[in-house]
Amino acid sequence: MRSHYCGLVDESMIGQTVTLCGWADVARDLGGVCFIDLRDHEGIVQVVAEPSDAQGNAAVVKAAADVGYEDCLRITGVVRARHAVNDRIRTGKVEVVATDIEVLNKAEPLPFHAHENAGEDIRLKYRYLDLRRPEMQKMMRTRIRLVQSLRRWLDARGFQDIETPILTKATPEGARDFLVPARLHPGEFYALPQSPQLFKQILMVAGFDRYYQIARCFRDEALRADRQLEFTQLDMEFAWVSERDVQDAVEGMIREVFKDVIDVELDAQFPRLTWAEAMRRFGSDKPDLRIPLELVDVAELVKDCGFKVFADAANEDGGRVAALRIPGGAALSRKQIDEYGAHAAKYGAKGLAYAKLDESGAVNSPIAKFFDESAFAALLQATGAQAGDMVFFGAGAYNKVCDFMGAVRLKAGKDFGLVESTWKPLWVTDFPMFEWDEEESRYVALHHPFTAPAIDDISELKANARIAVSRGYDMVLNGNEIGGGSIRIHRPDMQSAVFDLLGIGAQEAEAKFGFLLDALRYGAPPHGGIAFGIDRIAALMAGTESIRDVIAFPKTTTAQCLMTGAPSPVPEVQLAEVHVRAVPKATVPKD
Amino acid sequence: MRSHYCGLVDESMIGQTVTLCGWADVARDLGGVCFIDLRDHEGIVQVVAEPSDAQGNAAVVKAAADVGYEDCLRITGVVRARHAVNDRIRTGKVEVVATDIEVLNKAEPLPFHAHENAGEDIRLKYRYLDLRRPEMQKMMRTRIRLVQSLRRWLDARGFQDIETPILTKATPEGARDFLVPARLHPGEFYALPQSPQLFKQILMVAGFDRYYQIARCFRDEALRADRQLEFTQLDMEFAWVSERDVQDAVEGMIREVFKDVIDVELDAQFPRLTWAEAMRRFGSDKPDLRIPLELVDVAELVKDCGFKVFADAANEDGGRVAALRIPGGAALSRKQIDEYGAHAAKYGAKGLAYAKLDESGAVNSPIAKFFDESAFAALLQATGAQAGDMVFFGAGAYNKVCDFMGAVRLKAGKDFGLVESTWKPLWVTDFPMFEWDEEESRYVALHHPFTAPAIDDISELKANARIAVSRGYDMVLNGNEIGGGSIRIHRPDMQSAVFDLLGIGAQEAEAKFGFLLDALRYGAPPHGGIAFGIDRIAALMAGTESIRDVIAFPKTTTAQCLMTGAPSPVPEVQLAEVHVRAVPKATVPKD
Repeated sequence: MRSHYCGLVDESMIGQTVTLCGWADVARDLGGVCFIDLRDHEGIVQVVAEPSDAQGNAAVVKAAADVGYEDCLRITGVVRARHAVNDRIRTGKVEVVATDIEVLNKAEPLPFHAHENAGEDIRLKYRYLDLRRPEMQKMMRTRIRLVQSLRRWLDARGFQDIETPILTKATPEGARDFLVPARLHPGEFYALPQSPQLFKQILMVAGFDRYYQIARCFRDEALRADRQLEFTQLDMEFAWVSERDVQDAVEGMIREVFKDVIDVELDAQFPRLTWAEAMRRFGSDKPDLRIPLELVDVAELVKDCGFKVFADAANEDGGRVAALRIPGGAALSRKQIDEYGAHAAKYGAKGLAYAKLDESGAVNSPIAKFFDESAFAALLQATGAQAGDMVFFGAGAYNKVCDFMGAVRLKAGKDFGLVESTWKPLWVTDFPMFEWDEEESRYVALHHPFTAPAIDDISELKANARIAVSRGYDMVLNGNEIGGGSIRIHRPDMQSAVFDLLGIGAQEAEAKFGFLLDALRYGAPPHGGIAFGIDRIAALMAGTESIRDVIAFPKTTTAQCLMTGAPSPVPEVQLAEVHVRAVPKATVPKD
Repeated sequence: MRSHYCGLVDESMIGQTVTLCGWADVARDLGGVCFIDLRDHEGIVQVVAEPSDAQGNAAVVKAAADVGYEDCLRITGVVRARHAVNDRIRTGKVEVVATDIEVLNKAEPLPFHAHENAGEDIRLKYRYLDLRRPEMQKMMRTRIRLVQSLRRWLDARGFQDIETPILTKATPEGARDFLVPARLHPGEFYALPQSPQLFKQILMVAGFDRYYQIARCFRDEALRADRQLEFTQLDMEFAWVSERDVQDAVEGMIREVFKDVIDVELDAQFPRLTWAEAMRRFGSDKPDLRIPLELVDVAELVKDCGFKVFADAANEDGGRVAALRIPGGAALSRKQIDEYGAHAAKYGAKGLAYAKLDESGAVNSPIAKFFDESAFAALLQATGAQAGDMVFFGAGAYNKVCDFMGAVRLKAGKDFGLVESTWKPLWVTDFPMFEWDEEESRYVALHHPFTAPAIDDISELKANARIAVSRGYDMVLNGNEIGGGSIRIHRPDMQSAVFDLLGIGAQEAEAKFGFLLDALRYGAPPHGGIAFGIDRIAALMAGTESIRDVIAFPKTTTAQCLMTGAPSPVPEVQLAEVHVRAVPKATVPKD
């Protein structure tokens, strides 16, 4: 239907007749001479319809004059050099003088104009119009190139791309499952996978050696800006490996892909932090290393002070007192300081103490009064504070202090323009194996129940569960966990022991994970892997905050597709076929 | 953990120390010298543990003697030339003299031996053991290479790999939807997609120009040997194209992929048959052209015969009388002829008349008595029958005769060894636009309701709906429909008219397909595409009848995963969260 793409017409074609297909991006009638900017996915070219002696020319000019926004057109014409060169577009040195204009499909008046940024709801309803915008095309195509580049790397290295089921058994990884009633088995349900975790482990037992899948995963959780009901991960697994084998391989992959897709050179060697160090220095297990601020532990200096909040935390086992110095932070107003307090409170802080050092070096701090002058000076000195700085202090339980002081660090980094414009990847390793769940008064797995502990001895693990370290690892980029993985348990006795520590009894373990335990009994090899969040990496590469910009048909935070209208009511007869009945709304309040 | 793959150890390594990881395929203790066939995905190598003076050697021999089937091992040793060369394996010229044997994971006694072909149920339950078998590895890896090869072709040609939603709106393509209750929307449901059909059309409206996806699709239909609840298709769509553009492109793709993956050269130009010709000559819209048998229409010769079944069908509008000559078919016994009758009955035949010509040329036929001798001779002559042949006759409604005579043709082809050992691809085109559904007394779409008719004029289409031809096409290979597609309707008025002809009222159309009709109103380009069945193509390439052999974790014909136990009952509290209740078994009989 066409001879060339609109966006690729160039000077080499001058004098040639071309046939182009595309949309009318703009159409102007300047007193009998009409200009149409014709757009396809490659770009825009200017088409001119001007009166001449040629046969049928009047009809062409008339057709051009009738063209409206986003009409779908097929235009034949002759390429010629343009008088007024337009440097902003690739085709700016040429234009096409139309000899035929065919309207393939007339567009009705648009619900929003392609050149404005309309509200997100209307953009999602008319997603096809939104996706036509060059900005959206560019972001989506970045994602497509990311996946292509990953596959190229993986295929070249013998990773086997294997599909695992979408209709599977209820998985146990914390989040809520999506359920699918089984027509042939009344009262029974399939579940959509939260990840292919168990299948990929089984594939290692099955001898596939190296596996990957660009896998769709499903979690029925509260939606946030960066969450979708369904999301895509690059899922990988390796047999016969240690953690460094996995890490070195995928670090090389990520480096190559960033170079390939967005021409960015990442560090030749990603820095490595243990979980403990990351928490201590940055208050986060996914530290944004673009921000040159670090927490400083000051418990030793406040043990004996008169400020009970500090002294208690400093003296308690599992307490922490940490300070964060913000260079130039003395510029914060009273109101802004309160905003920091409120921000910290969102992350669990009961209060956020501070000390402000004005340009003269005078200190303004509500907690100064609890200290000897020299002790307070020593405290400030420990934080490295200088004239013009602000120091925030947090005290309380270790992980909580990390959480809110880490949040304060991020806010300060942004507010003070301290976020370097660069890419800062790192590995976080040596995660705790278990977390103690106060509410349920039992251990929960920090990664998932299939992560191997660093300790090989079962009785040692049981004796030291609280401080046991796992063989899990995360890849972090600019404050985002972009990949997470671990070496898995490959011995059935160890897997049973870990289930036991997690309060999963033998019977429950058999019912839920019997097939995994079985598989481990028949010569399962040592194995490990990782999964990368494709949506997030694509968003980072595309330079957008929202993963919705790199998903063709995303759902809203209320779990709806505004274009198709999913979810929707279903006739009773269809429900009866799959042996379920909807429970009336009145009896179940929305959450 | 290893220095080399087992299957790749060769003569160039003689004298080297290697470390291998793998499974004990076979282990034999021949009076103090132990042999282990160590297997990984690359193949098998022989390991020898024999007494020597080396330190710790006794322990190595002891460890080797204790090795059992499928133990997971890590073995270090020195490569040496083998006395008795084994030509059946790649590594057959060498062996590895073990200096260290580490048992990474001991295997329990196996539920079935990897070298036998156990029953399918037990193979599916212990799928990881089944997949370890080299035959299964080979079939699965053929599928993986197929998908890789397809992607390589597509990526090189600018097709954009775009993911479409799995949680979407109830689709209307005939088959039953899988439903997923929506937690945030009580009483509402997502549906799993039967195909990405509407999304890919929307992507063309959205300006992506060329799209593909290796897409998971879902149909809650009765399972047959070649059906799964979820299946995979290569889904493609092109903007601004005619049917030949699509066909020529994908024909080239399939040719290249067959060459690439299994080194088969398909025809340089696939033959093309209209639907009408395929039905007339082969009684099928997916003819197996490897069988050199064709139906012959004989209505003209039986119009006036005394056999009412023939005469009625020959004189009726929409009737058919067809003959199939089987060379050498006179060898069929009375019992075998009955089997053909029973086979035809399964496909709707009320009877299957025949004429048997023995070697002397004498005719044995129960219907001969209804004809003049010369008329019957003329009838036989029209079929091309010769001494030693069998001729079957079918009469009745046109499509029914095609169905059962097509089935008889396939059976005869197999029974008489007439199926050529080759690859016979073809295009079937010019399908009817509609089929008249007697039961519902309305038209149904032969492809789907989005397929464009060959006629552009709406009133002409309405006037001639019964004989209207669509712009649909199928790619057929050896009797399998491996791909199907069409040029789609891109004009909203034509789409509404087709909905109307299908008895889908304006209101229903708006509710179900409003977003498509909307999209067509905003400058939708002409577009078309195709979808290929990956599971079937992989099975054909792998040389297996069952698509389950090329799916890592398939379900049974009763829709179960024997390994994980899906589907399974779900606690009531979990159902309550998604606002459904299971209906007790007693009230719904299984179908």
